[in-house]
Amino acid sequence: MNLLLLEPDQLDADGRARLSGAALVHVREVLGKTVGSSIKVGVRGGLRGRAEVLAFDEHRLELACVLDEEPPYKRPIELVLALPRPPVLRRLLQHVTAMGVRRVVLCHSARVEKSYWSSPAVAAAEIDANVRLGLEQACDTVAPLVETRLRLRPFVEDELAPRLDARRLLADPSGASACPCDVEGATIVAIGPEGGWVPFELGLWADAGFLCVNLGPRILRVETAVIAALARLG
Amino acid sequence: MNLLLLEPDQLDADGRARLSGAALVHVREVLGKTVGSSIKVGVRGGLRGRAEVLAFDEHRLELACVLDEEPPYKRPIELVLALPRPPVLRRLLQHVTAMGVRRVVLCHSARVEKSYWSSPAVAAAEIDANVRLGLEQACDTVAPLVETRLRLRPFVEDELAPRLDARRLLADPSGASACPCDVEGATIVAIGPEGGWVPFELGLWADAGFLCVNLGPRILRVETAVIAALARLG
Repeated sequence: MNLLLLEPDQLDADGRARLSGAALVHVREVLGKTVGSSIKVGVRGGLRGRAEVLAFDEHRLELACVLDEEPPYKRPIELVLALPRPPVLRRLLQHVTAMGVRRVVLCHSARVEKSYWSSPAVAAAEIDANVRLGLEQACDTVAPLVETRLRLRPFVEDELAPRLDARRLLADPSGASACPCDVEGATIVAIGPEGGWVPFELGLWADAGFLCVNLGPRILRVETAVIAALARLG
Repeated sequence: MNLLLLEPDQLDADGRARLSGAALVHVREVLGKTVGSSIKVGVRGGLRGRAEVLAFDEHRLELACVLDEEPPYKRPIELVLALPRPPVLRRLLQHVTAMGVRRVVLCHSARVEKSYWSSPAVAAAEIDANVRLGLEQACDTVAPLVETRLRLRPFVEDELAPRLDARRLLADPSGASACPCDVEGATIVAIGPEGGWVPFELGLWADAGFLCVNLGPRILRVETAVIAALARLG
């Protein structure tokens, strides 16, 4: 945790925050902070800055916060991802939040096991917990929008195909050209499941104007491929 | 597993291989293969190709292999990595092997917990097991060289500083320029521990001719940063 993320209702009008529970334990045990220490803080959806520890006991932590810094820039990149298996989803939400994507859409695909959709990892509370870890890692305060689409075809045809404003990329080993580096402007990048999209789905993406790009000649795991694609897009 | 990796001693002179144990269970249960099925195979350190399942019972799997394809190209990239905590090390060995780096050197740093060095994850057998998973993922047969250096200073000063043949990069949030994309030729990239290198260590790297490059303004976890750096180097 590089930034202690506060919820707006944890902060008084005078910049004081009172914490208990897991946040208190983390500040004391992991960060080793004590009265007078300074901590990097941010308010969910708002500014970030520093806080001084005013008081500290087993039940309560009191902070005086000075919030004067905008959250870091978020790249206009949207990630469309065939729902990965739950442990990979948990880690990927942390990775991609830290990397600063603006929106993540988890979608279905023929090679996504249906049971993944009923995993607790897809429930709003657990998605939020992993997004939060990513924000705290990257000193960010603004969560990406995380959405789900259980039906791929209407999502691609009705929502993505009309997005003529955005560069639309499909990262897939079948791509003829390499995933570009340091792109400018709005970009949507779609990444398939382990085993790849089936031919019908590849046709959907092509018809929706998605350019198929590769990440090298090697077949990568979804977790590796997502980070690699976002790192190249810059 | 996208390729079944055989050890050289599992293969007869006539291209027949007999497997048992975990490999047999995997081919039957996970890949769902049966007599007459074709499987992608490779021989550790050698060629790859296809195998036909000749016979199959609970105790033995017999394959007829035709090996006629070179392993995929390995980029002349060497990764120097401050030893991460064991679960991250396990996953990273899989990621970086799949991505095709030629050599990985795990080194010490002031912010690496000494206890990590006595983890089973650093033992040769477990390193090899994770490298193997990376090879099977990327249909490769040639393992990267994985080495350890417990003393950072002589490693950087005596082994890396004289490597004038190689582009030498240190991926660190303090870098003034962005990590380059699609570099040509021999490249060494060094990535620090969670929390970063201490100032003395940053001085060592600079003195050894390492150019400090960043992966964007966000502080990434080591796992994210390693994949991101390798993906950009191309």
